[in-house]
Amino acid sequence: MKIIVDGMGGDNAPSAVVEGAILASRETEHHIAIIGREDLISSELAKHRYDSQKISVVNATEVISNDDAPVRAVRSKKDSSIVKGINMVKKGEGDIFISAGSTGALLAGGLFILGRIQGIDRPALASVYPILGGIPSLLVDAGANADCKPNNLLEFGVMGSIYMEKVIGRDNPRVGLVNIGTEAAKGSTLTKAAFDLLEQSHLNFLGNVEAREVPKGACDVIVTDGFTGNVLLKLTEGLAWNILQVIKKKFTDGAKAKLGAALLMNKMKELKSEFDYSEYGGAPILGIRGPIVKMHGSSSANAVKNTILKGIPYVSENVVDTIQNSVLEIEEITLSEY
Amino acid sequence: MKIIVDGMGGDNAPSAVVEGAILASRETEHHIAIIGREDLISSELAKHRYDSQKISVVNATEVISNDDAPVRAVRSKKDSSIVKGINMVKKGEGDIFISAGSTGALLAGGLFILGRIQGIDRPALASVYPILGGIPSLLVDAGANADCKPNNLLEFGVMGSIYMEKVIGRDNPRVGLVNIGTEAAKGSTLTKAAFDLLEQSHLNFLGNVEAREVPKGACDVIVTDGFTGNVLLKLTEGLAWNILQVIKKKFTDGAKAKLGAALLMNKMKELKSEFDYSEYGGAPILGIRGPIVKMHGSSSANAVKNTILKGIPYVSENVVDTIQNSVLEIEEITLSEY
Repeated sequence: MKIIVDGMGGDNAPSAVVEGAILASRETEHHIAIIGREDLISSELAKHRYDSQKISVVNATEVISNDDAPVRAVRSKKDSSIVKGINMVKKGEGDIFISAGSTGALLAGGLFILGRIQGIDRPALASVYPILGGIPSLLVDAGANADCKPNNLLEFGVMGSIYMEKVIGRDNPRVGLVNIGTEAAKGSTLTKAAFDLLEQSHLNFLGNVEAREVPKGACDVIVTDGFTGNVLLKLTEGLAWNILQVIKKKFTDGAKAKLGAALLMNKMKELKSEFDYSEYGGAPILGIRGPIVKMHGSSSANAVKNTILKGIPYVSENVVDTIQNSVLEIEEITLSEY
Repeated sequence: MKIIVDGMGGDNAPSAVVEGAILASRETEHHIAIIGREDLISSELAKHRYDSQKISVVNATEVISNDDAPVRAVRSKKDSSIVKGINMVKKGEGDIFISAGSTGALLAGGLFILGRIQGIDRPALASVYPILGGIPSLLVDAGANADCKPNNLLEFGVMGSIYMEKVIGRDNPRVGLVNIGTEAAKGSTLTKAAFDLLEQSHLNFLGNVEAREVPKGACDVIVTDGFTGNVLLKLTEGLAWNILQVIKKKFTDGAKAKLGAALLMNKMKELKSEFDYSEYGGAPILGIRGPIVKMHGSSSANAVKNTILKGIPYVSENVVDTIQNSVLEIEEITLSEY
């Protein structure tokens, strides 16, 4: 297996990417190719000891930034790490492409270069969602599709279940539909129709899940439209950050509090680390004809390492083919509604 | 002014309602009428000392519960506290109706009995949103309308601004549109169109606000469709509860932690109380022809007191008339889009 990692994407590129690739190479036999400006990546590699049989550099002279308009960038920057990396997957010169670069460019590249899996209407971004004190859930769609139709939510459930089972390792994952009430008849036009479709599937569908139950781990696969998914994910980040900041401020206010805080230092660190779900890898773009994984822009070397290692089962467990093989069921359920 | 309070609504009725009404009566000259089963309310009143000139009981023999189908209940239970209480507002026998009962029944009662303000397409539930260490924001719509059109979001912005200014006391409130990116062109079909409408208004419109900024107090009036609003509110409740639970567990794990936690007891209580936003009152149903306020089902006597007191400016500042007078601008902006 050859894993292609984007050396130019993210806030800490190329240093965090290079270091993460080296860390990963010590835990796997698979080859890792780092793509990007060869001079920059090679000089970064030179700072470390690594096995040159297991890590190589692929030169790509252009860079797509977060400020570039994604579609235009993918069409025009043919020698960018993103376009070239995805093309390598398409040509079979690599098995998976991992990048902390522009989400929009990765989506556009996935759609234009690899294409959708036939029968999947809308590919989606699947993001690990942190569950304090438990195994994380998988949120689909985390923001690729702001407007969705009911069949898209069925697709998200099917694709998310496959990824959760094969890559995160959760058997028979419980699928929940984010809604504003638990009864079948509750919700928006979209969720009511999606409920009916999900219920007809072979999925382990629990039904509607209210947003207040999501952080408690009420389901393993959190199905929702990309607008709501993005709101869920970002609110979680913002609120958790905010609560931790307020705690920090309160706990350093006064001598007595400071002493208490000193005694609780380890516990606070534990708490903070529970929000760090990078050990479960990045966010796969599900529904396209090849594995592409988006990492957080601020990924550390350790997060890069974990994403690379989680990329292995994404390839070896044939997630893309499994999704392809599940399309028939999706189409049958969707068509039965007409 | 006569404030009508539903004696039968909520988990702690009638005791918390009666006690809250008595507490409120000590801080205002206005009359408070408690509506519900007279025997129950009178025997609850008898447990306290109160000014019988300022508190009266109105008998209503029926009760609408959360299990009742709202529309059917409002149509059939004519002698329920909710239907009778809203009818009193309609007939001018009371100035405002406050209830911790079924949200659906309050919405249905507001729509059928009082009716919409002419020119307002969709009345909305406005809920106070807690901002740690700051003045709370107002979330509109918190769940009355799962499916919205762009003009509804403009209405929510206008109505929310008026309430925030006149009742919560925030001058020139900053209005933000919940979206999945900050640029004008970002988001769903709904938010893109709503952005254009809001920008044409006289509101202090900041533009799009990402969900991660909402808990930090990025805007005073959080405009969103009722589905997203409900998700925002419930996720905030669920996540905050979850984080506090995990902290509690961690802080009682081991002798050292317990000692630290003991030293931080007051700080933790402060933190918890910051999520208690009952001092800012309940959730008004904006856009109907009279003031109705929904309290949380688990409202304490203190929350009831605060909601009653916040009901006074809702009436005296003529919020309903002010909304009525702002309809022309909404209609002009909306029509200009056709």
